[in-house]
Amino acid sequence: MYEDRIRLATLMDKVMTADRAAALFSDGMTVGMSGFTRAGDAKALPLALVERARQAPLHLTLLTGASLGNDSDGLMANAGVVARRMPFQADAALRRKINTGEVMFIDQHLSETAEQLRSGDLKAVDIAVIEAVAITEDGSIIPTMSVGNTASFAQQAAQVIIEINLAAPLALEGFHDIYVPHARPEREPIPLTSPLQRIGATAIAIDPARIAAIVITDSADSPSNALPPDTETDAIARHVVAFLEGEVAAGRMGPQLLPLQAGIGTIANAVLHGLSASSFRDMTMYSEVLQDSAIALLDSGHLAVASASSITLSAATHERFIANLEQYRDRIVLRPQEISNHPEIVRRLGIIALNTALEFDIYGNVNSTHVGGTHMMNGIGGSGDFARNGQLSIFVSKSVAKDGAISSVVPFAAHVDHTEHDVDVLVTEWGLADLRGLAPRERAPLIIEQCAHPDYRPQLRAYVEQALAGGGQTPHVLEQALAWHARYKREGTMLVK
Amino acid sequence: MYEDRIRLATLMDKVMTADRAAALFSDGMTVGMSGFTRAGDAKALPLALVERARQAPLHLTLLTGASLGNDSDGLMANAGVVARRMPFQADAALRRKINTGEVMFIDQHLSETAEQLRSGDLKAVDIAVIEAVAITEDGSIIPTMSVGNTASFAQQAAQVIIEINLAAPLALEGFHDIYVPHARPEREPIPLTSPLQRIGATAIAIDPARIAAIVITDSADSPSNALPPDTETDAIARHVVAFLEGEVAAGRMGPQLLPLQAGIGTIANAVLHGLSASSFRDMTMYSEVLQDSAIALLDSGHLAVASASSITLSAATHERFIANLEQYRDRIVLRPQEISNHPEIVRRLGIIALNTALEFDIYGNVNSTHVGGTHMMNGIGGSGDFARNGQLSIFVSKSVAKDGAISSVVPFAAHVDHTEHDVDVLVTEWGLADLRGLAPRERAPLIIEQCAHPDYRPQLRAYVEQALAGGGQTPHVLEQALAWHARYKREGTMLVK
Repeated sequence: MYEDRIRLATLMDKVMTADRAAALFSDGMTVGMSGFTRAGDAKALPLALVERARQAPLHLTLLTGASLGNDSDGLMANAGVVARRMPFQADAALRRKINTGEVMFIDQHLSETAEQLRSGDLKAVDIAVIEAVAITEDGSIIPTMSVGNTASFAQQAAQVIIEINLAAPLALEGFHDIYVPHARPEREPIPLTSPLQRIGATAIAIDPARIAAIVITDSADSPSNALPPDTETDAIARHVVAFLEGEVAAGRMGPQLLPLQAGIGTIANAVLHGLSASSFRDMTMYSEVLQDSAIALLDSGHLAVASASSITLSAATHERFIANLEQYRDRIVLRPQEISNHPEIVRRLGIIALNTALEFDIYGNVNSTHVGGTHMMNGIGGSGDFARNGQLSIFVSKSVAKDGAISSVVPFAAHVDHTEHDVDVLVTEWGLADLRGLAPRERAPLIIEQCAHPDYRPQLRAYVEQALAGGGQTPHVLEQALAWHARYKREGTMLVK
Repeated sequence: MYEDRIRLATLMDKVMTADRAAALFSDGMTVGMSGFTRAGDAKALPLALVERARQAPLHLTLLTGASLGNDSDGLMANAGVVARRMPFQADAALRRKINTGEVMFIDQHLSETAEQLRSGDLKAVDIAVIEAVAITEDGSIIPTMSVGNTASFAQQAAQVIIEINLAAPLALEGFHDIYVPHARPEREPIPLTSPLQRIGATAIAIDPARIAAIVITDSADSPSNALPPDTETDAIARHVVAFLEGEVAAGRMGPQLLPLQAGIGTIANAVLHGLSASSFRDMTMYSEVLQDSAIALLDSGHLAVASASSITLSAATHERFIANLEQYRDRIVLRPQEISNHPEIVRRLGIIALNTALEFDIYGNVNSTHVGGTHMMNGIGGSGDFARNGQLSIFVSKSVAKDGAISSVVPFAAHVDHTEHDVDVLVTEWGLADLRGLAPRERAPLIIEQCAHPDYRPQLRAYVEQALAGGGQTPHVLEQALAWHARYKREGTMLVK
C-alpha cells in the first residue's frame, strides 16, 4: 500500500503512528513545521506532541511557514509545547499566550526566516515535520497546498518526519517550484524574471537517510476564515480600482498592470474580488497566498497566472479547485516563501503590494500588528517584504473599528511596522490618499480628508493645528500623540465627546 | 583648450558661464544635481541659481544623490530656490527651512529615488546638472568623486548641464561602473555577485544633443566634516570588533567577514577605524560612501577592495588619495547609488550594515532622522536599504547626548525609521545587545543593561516593570511612552531628578 505515495521502497519501514514519531522529540528542540496560512500544515504530529507533553516536559521552539490550521497552534500552546514561536501566527489561544508573555513570539518578515536559519542567526532546526503528497523514487518530498519554509527546514533538519496526506490529490505534483538560494558568500542572482517562470525542481530533494518517520493522514486543510466582502470593503475596492485605472491612464503601467500581491485576510481578499469588476485583463499575481478571490479572477480570465507560497480557500472553492486541478496546472506555481517574498524579485518585478493596516497615522506610518500598540494580533507576515520593495505600496483599512470607538487613522501609530518611507497609498472606505512625492506636512491633510472617518476629522485637524505650532518636518504634540489610544483604554472610545 | 576634457569637438560651442547656463531654468522645474555626501557636487550652478533667483522667482524641486557640499544646499534654500528637496540633505540652513515648513523635504531610501523617477512616481527631471571629469568622444559623461543618481538624471532630463571640474584629475576615469536597471516589466537580474565586479560602463552614455551647456570650474569638494574618534567611539568600535570576532569564531562568517557597509558620519567612521586594530584581513566593503577610515583600511591591507557611490574625505586624506590614485584603481569602484544600495545586491552579498541611530527604544526600534520626534536632522539615507536587506543590521549610538540630558535609549522611539523587524544588534559605549532570535520582552532588559547609560537604567527598568503589568507582546504604558521627550522639552533633561 501507498506505493504511489512512497515511491522509494526502502522508506516503507519508516511508516509509523504519529505517537511513535512524537517520541523522537525532546525538550528544548527546535522544530520546523510545514504550513502557511492554514495550508499544507502537518495534521497528526501537532496532536501527538500535545499528547507527548502530558508524559514529560516538552518545550519547543516552533518555526513554520506562517499560520497553522486545525487549531494546532492553539492546542500546542495550551499544552505548553510552544515555548518560542516564529515567524507568524493567527490563532486566538496562541495569541493569548503570546500577550501574557508565556510564549516568546518573534515577529519576522516572511522572506527572512530561511535566510536567518541558513546564516546561523537562528538556532538550527532539529526536526522538520512536513506534509507531503508523496515521496519520490529518490526520496524527494512533494509538498501539498503550501511550500512555506519547508524546503529550508528539510535541508537543515537532522531528522525529517513526513506526513503523507491521502486527502491531498497526487495531481498536486508539478505545481511546486523549489529553488533555495545558496549560502553566502557564494550566491548567484535568482534567475526569476516573470511570475510563472520555473527556476527549480518540482520536489524538495533531501538525503532519504534523514527521513526518520512517515505518518499517514487523511484530512483536508482548515478552510479559509476570510469574511465575505461588505459595503466598506466594496468601497475600498472601488477606490483601489479607480486609482489603478489612473496609473494606466498616466502611462505608469500597462492595462495588465504589474504583478499583484495581496495580503491574507478579509479586506485584501475583498479588494481582489473588486478587480473582477474592472477592465483589467491578463493580470498576473506574484503573492504569498492565493485566496478565493485569486481563483475567481483566474476563472474569469482577469488573471492570467499566479505565483504564491500557499493556496488557502473556503471549503466550497477548495472543492472546486481540487476537482479541476488540471485547468490550473499551467497557470499557478507554488514557491518557497523566501522566493515568493524575496526583495530581489519583488523589486525586479515591481509588485503592486496590497496589504491591510490595523491603523495608520496622519504622516503615513502603518501599524500592522499591535492592537493598542502593545498586544500582538497576528504578525507582520510578508507585508514588509512587499511594501518596501514593490513599485506601489498600498495599505487598506476600514476607517473605524468597534462600531466607531476606534479610529484607524490616528495622530501617531502606537506601533510602527511600515515607516513613512515605505507607504505610497492609503485607502479606507472614504477615499484614497496618494502620498507619493509628498512631505509629511502635505500628507497629513490628505490622509485626514480622504481616509479618516468624518466623525474623527475635527479631532485630527485640531491635532495637526496644535502640532504645527511646534514646527518640524513631522509636527507632533508628544504629550498628546498617543492620547487617543489611552482614551480608548480609559473611556472605551477614541472619540472626544 | 579643454580638448582632453571635452573630447567631442561639436560640444565646444556649448561652453558658457554658469550665469548663462542658469538662464535655462524656469520657475517650477524639477532639477537633478550630482553630489553625494559632499562629493562630486556641481560647484558653479548652485551659486548661479541663487543669483538668478534675485531677478525673477525661481522655485525648484531639487533632487540629488545625497547631501551637497560648499554650503550649496543652504545658499539655495536661503535664496528661496529650493521649494522641494529629496532624497537627503545635511545642511544647517536647509534643515531650518525644512523644519519651519518652508521647504518640503521628502526623506527617501537612497536606492529608491532613481526607481521612482523611472516608474513615473515622481515628476520627471527637467534639467540635470552634473559635475564631470570629462566628456568622451561619443558625448558620454565621466563623473568625479561620486556617481549618486547622476546616471538616472542624465538619462531622463530634457537638458543636461555639465560642469567640467579641472580640479578633478583625469585619472579618475575608469573608477566608475555605470549600470542602470531597465524599466519594468522588462528587468533582468543585476549580474553583480562580488563587491569589485564591474557590470557596466566607465561613463554615463547620453545623446550629446541633450547637452545644453558646459561650464568650466576648478575647485575641490568640501572636505568631510566627520569628527575624529573619541573615548566613546573607541569603546563602540571595540564592542563591534569583539562581536564580529565572535561571529567568526561561531563559524557564521569567515575571517574576511562579509562585505561591510558603514553610514556617513563620525561614529560609523570611527567604528571602521577600530577595525584597523582587529585581526581581520582581506575584508571587503560594499557601501554607499568611503570615508577616511576606508582609505586607511585599504592602505593597511585590512581592506582588500571597496565599492561605493562616493568618496568623501578630509582635506589631508583627499590630497593623499588624489596623489596616489593609481594604487587604488584596481581596488575601488564607484557605482550609481541605486546599485550600491540595491536590496537585490545587499541581500545577495549579505552585507554587515553599520549605521548610526539618533535614538533607539527598549524593544529595538530605531530613530535615525527626527530630533525629538519632530525635527529633521539629515534623513534616513541608505541606512534602511542596508539594515533591511543585509545579513547583520548593527546600529551604533553614544548612550547620551547633550551632556547626559538626552538618553539615546528611550521607552518608545519618537520616530521610527527602522522597525524592530530590521534591527539585529545595538551598540553604545557601554556595551552591545544582540537581539537576534529574541522576542520584545527579552530584548528590553538586554538593551537596558547593555546599552543604556547607567544614570538612565533605573528609569528604564521602572518603565518596563510598569509596562509589564499591562501585558502584551510589546508592553507599554502609552501615557508615559513619550514622556521622556516631553520632559526634555519642558525641563531640559530626560532624567527624573
